[in-house]
Amino acid sequence: MPFDLQTFVQRAAALVGPDRVLTGPDRTDSYERDWRDRYHQKAAAVVLPGTVEEVAAIVRLCGDAGVAVVPQGGNTGLTGGAVAPADRPAILLNVSRLNRIRNVDLRDNAMTVDAGCILADVRARAEEHGRLFPLLLGSVGSCEVGGLVSTNAGGTGVLRYGCMRELVMGLEAVLPDGSIWNGLRSLRKDNTGYDMKQLFIGAEGTLGIVTAAVLKLFPALTASASAMVAADSVRQAVDLLRFLQDQVGDRIEAFEVLSRSQLQMVMQHGHGLQAPMPLDAPWYVLIEIADSARDWDAVAQMEAALGAAMEADLVADAVVATDQAKARRLWELRHSVSEANKRAGFSISNDTSVPISRLPEFIERVERRMAAEVPQATVCHAGHIGDGNVHVIAILPRDGCSTAEARERAATVVTGIVHAESVALDGSISAEHGIGRMHVARLEEVKPARELDMMRSVKQAFDPLGIMNPGKVFQMPPQA
Amino acid sequence: MPFDLQTFVQRAAALVGPDRVLTGPDRTDSYERDWRDRYHQKAAAVVLPGTVEEVAAIVRLCGDAGVAVVPQGGNTGLTGGAVAPADRPAILLNVSRLNRIRNVDLRDNAMTVDAGCILADVRARAEEHGRLFPLLLGSVGSCEVGGLVSTNAGGTGVLRYGCMRELVMGLEAVLPDGSIWNGLRSLRKDNTGYDMKQLFIGAEGTLGIVTAAVLKLFPALTASASAMVAADSVRQAVDLLRFLQDQVGDRIEAFEVLSRSQLQMVMQHGHGLQAPMPLDAPWYVLIEIADSARDWDAVAQMEAALGAAMEADLVADAVVATDQAKARRLWELRHSVSEANKRAGFSISNDTSVPISRLPEFIERVERRMAAEVPQATVCHAGHIGDGNVHVIAILPRDGCSTAEARERAATVVTGIVHAESVALDGSISAEHGIGRMHVARLEEVKPARELDMMRSVKQAFDPLGIMNPGKVFQMPPQA
Repeated sequence: MPFDLQTFVQRAAALVGPDRVLTGPDRTDSYERDWRDRYHQKAAAVVLPGTVEEVAAIVRLCGDAGVAVVPQGGNTGLTGGAVAPADRPAILLNVSRLNRIRNVDLRDNAMTVDAGCILADVRARAEEHGRLFPLLLGSVGSCEVGGLVSTNAGGTGVLRYGCMRELVMGLEAVLPDGSIWNGLRSLRKDNTGYDMKQLFIGAEGTLGIVTAAVLKLFPALTASASAMVAADSVRQAVDLLRFLQDQVGDRIEAFEVLSRSQLQMVMQHGHGLQAPMPLDAPWYVLIEIADSARDWDAVAQMEAALGAAMEADLVADAVVATDQAKARRLWELRHSVSEANKRAGFSISNDTSVPISRLPEFIERVERRMAAEVPQATVCHAGHIGDGNVHVIAILPRDGCSTAEARERAATVVTGIVHAESVALDGSISAEHGIGRMHVARLEEVKPARELDMMRSVKQAFDPLGIMNPGKVFQMPPQA
Repeated sequence: MPFDLQTFVQRAAALVGPDRVLTGPDRTDSYERDWRDRYHQKAAAVVLPGTVEEVAAIVRLCGDAGVAVVPQGGNTGLTGGAVAPADRPAILLNVSRLNRIRNVDLRDNAMTVDAGCILADVRARAEEHGRLFPLLLGSVGSCEVGGLVSTNAGGTGVLRYGCMRELVMGLEAVLPDGSIWNGLRSLRKDNTGYDMKQLFIGAEGTLGIVTAAVLKLFPALTASASAMVAADSVRQAVDLLRFLQDQVGDRIEAFEVLSRSQLQMVMQHGHGLQAPMPLDAPWYVLIEIADSARDWDAVAQMEAALGAAMEADLVADAVVATDQAKARRLWELRHSVSEANKRAGFSISNDTSVPISRLPEFIERVERRMAAEVPQATVCHAGHIGDGNVHVIAILPRDGCSTAEARERAATVVTGIVHAESVALDGSISAEHGIGRMHVARLEEVKPARELDMMRSVKQAFDPLGIMNPGKVFQMPPQA
């Protein structure tokens, strides 16, 4: 039976209410466009269920009607993972209305939240209870838990706390057959068969729709200090990290590198942000150290550690924030990167990681090739040195990239360079943003065939009809 | 074609050498018996490959011959996961000869090791390089990396560093079709499709044979202090943990509870170990705090923290080890538990976890039922309070358990009690030992059916012939 949009919309409306099934470009456009405006694909409808049961009912309806389901949260993804496929009828199933914090348990240091909860709200609620939820990234004010789980989000806290995978104790998900799996456990240890939640974490919605998660909480930090440091090279920044680890142990909360070009971009497009030191070095590092223990003078520790680093020739110049307001202003520089670059032009961001020891070589090789092959680009770097993860960002003048085709062409060249140099140094083409729609073809080139086979066999086992976010991460062979 | 043992052994010998295919009880018995001597099952042969390629060749041979493959390492498992199945021809494929430390990279803090490397050797090698590999459990001197990965091992370092899952960056495995998957990455972040290594971690050899792993290393601890503390109740011990976390942050390296009965068992069967304080309290906690930072006086910190705890009525009595030798002797008490219990009688150990807040209620309920229903047992507790994971151990006089049937009967009763009380409090029936052969029927009762379906669908996708460690974790439906 061919797909009949009107009938489908009526049925969906009967399940979730007519106001919750959006059609027509004026209501759907913002959902159909990705955050960076690289992809825009019409969906049959945008559906906004309000309960897990409604999510399940919509998935069953889609299975019956042969309609693909694209899960979507805050729609802040950077690889087009929440964009509709072009080759079949699909809905965008947006979970933002599932936004309840279900439970906070202080003795268990656990918090159960719906998939549509916004990261900033999760962090604020933890803070109200004297706890920390440590995940932090630029889109903190709009990204949602479901997307954070489905992309195994990283950000600036990974060095100390790990990615989202390390922060999830339990999950609830709607499976491709429309059944609900309740894996909302708050156990620190549980070895009873395969750890199924691991499959949903980072699956980008291809195996089911994450509807809730149990998150780990940590003791609130009672003392912290931030600093900005100038460095002569990436090698020096790596050495500084190891040096500081010797000085203050695992209290390094964040260690973020920014190239001078990136800081200049933030100065220019960051709504009045200012640099706390002259930008005359090629690299800058933003550092935070923090502790939940008593009697720890963070600012004094930072000053002592950086003083020693200066004597060891690991730091060219440094500014220590002497109070929390100053520290916040330092970190605004980092968290404004993505917004500023978006305003600056057509920005092509990459997200590669390499073994930490190979970072300096990676950046040098990329810079050389970019200067030769894409001279019109401003090349910026922002990243998480302790994770081996640097975002190489090429910003192109908007007038050369006015059409989708021109943008796609430029992105292909830039990304080709960055990926090639990463893979040549045993790196990954996507450290924390995922594959989405953007890197499907590349993954096919660089991942061992046997590993792709394993992934496809899992996909086939979970989603034999192929309705869950098709065409993301990898393509499945045509069905017999 | 029916299975012909002689032909099979000849073919296996042609692949790995005749000395490496063991048959006959005098050569195979110790491999066929589990460490606790609860299971003893004859295998067609014990095969000892020396390379990954030999492992792969043996797996292919078994696939062709319809012989099941039971992966085995140090054979220290506690749930019969490395015992041959009774219902079909099987080999024990022991990986102990794969025992090379392939690489240590200090800049990446990564170490690549074969599956047959013994944990103590891994730890020692890390230490030689000024690094820490933090996993630590009683069988440290004989357990091997492949088994540690396949059971997602825990131990005493989980509170701070996590289970084996958190310590693995990459894996190599031989898949059920005899192909070799090389996932030996040393990337801190890599979001390129499903994280396949997560499936092998904790799969107990049912999806393939782990042949090597990339392990995370940590900065060596430069200062540590240990103490033993008497407590009036489990509730008090839980409160003490939270109190210490406020005092010293995340520097708590281990926080292990032992019941008086367990300590007495160690005194009696522990080869001359002595308690550093009179055993007149019902509970004892062994605590280690440690740091990799400079200028941290661990003993002074421990004394100050415990002094404050004493004033807050959270500690009845305490001994702080003033030097490393004394600290080692304290920890010998903990690490001798398993050996001592084995000597003391027929010990039935459980491995449940519950949310931390429910631990006191759990232990109280178990003790009450054990006293009423299994009065001949000495009930001991040893466990990891910070993980909600306490091992309830019932030690029965050997003379009442001389036959396998009697042992099985007693274990069924004890385990039934412990599991029922754990599940009633939202707990897990296996926190860190896995399911193995022992808990297959129970898992079927307590795990959501949809979740077991998901596991079976993964198993079917990876191992359609059903040759990899059949009958462990769950039973598969008979093949059509």
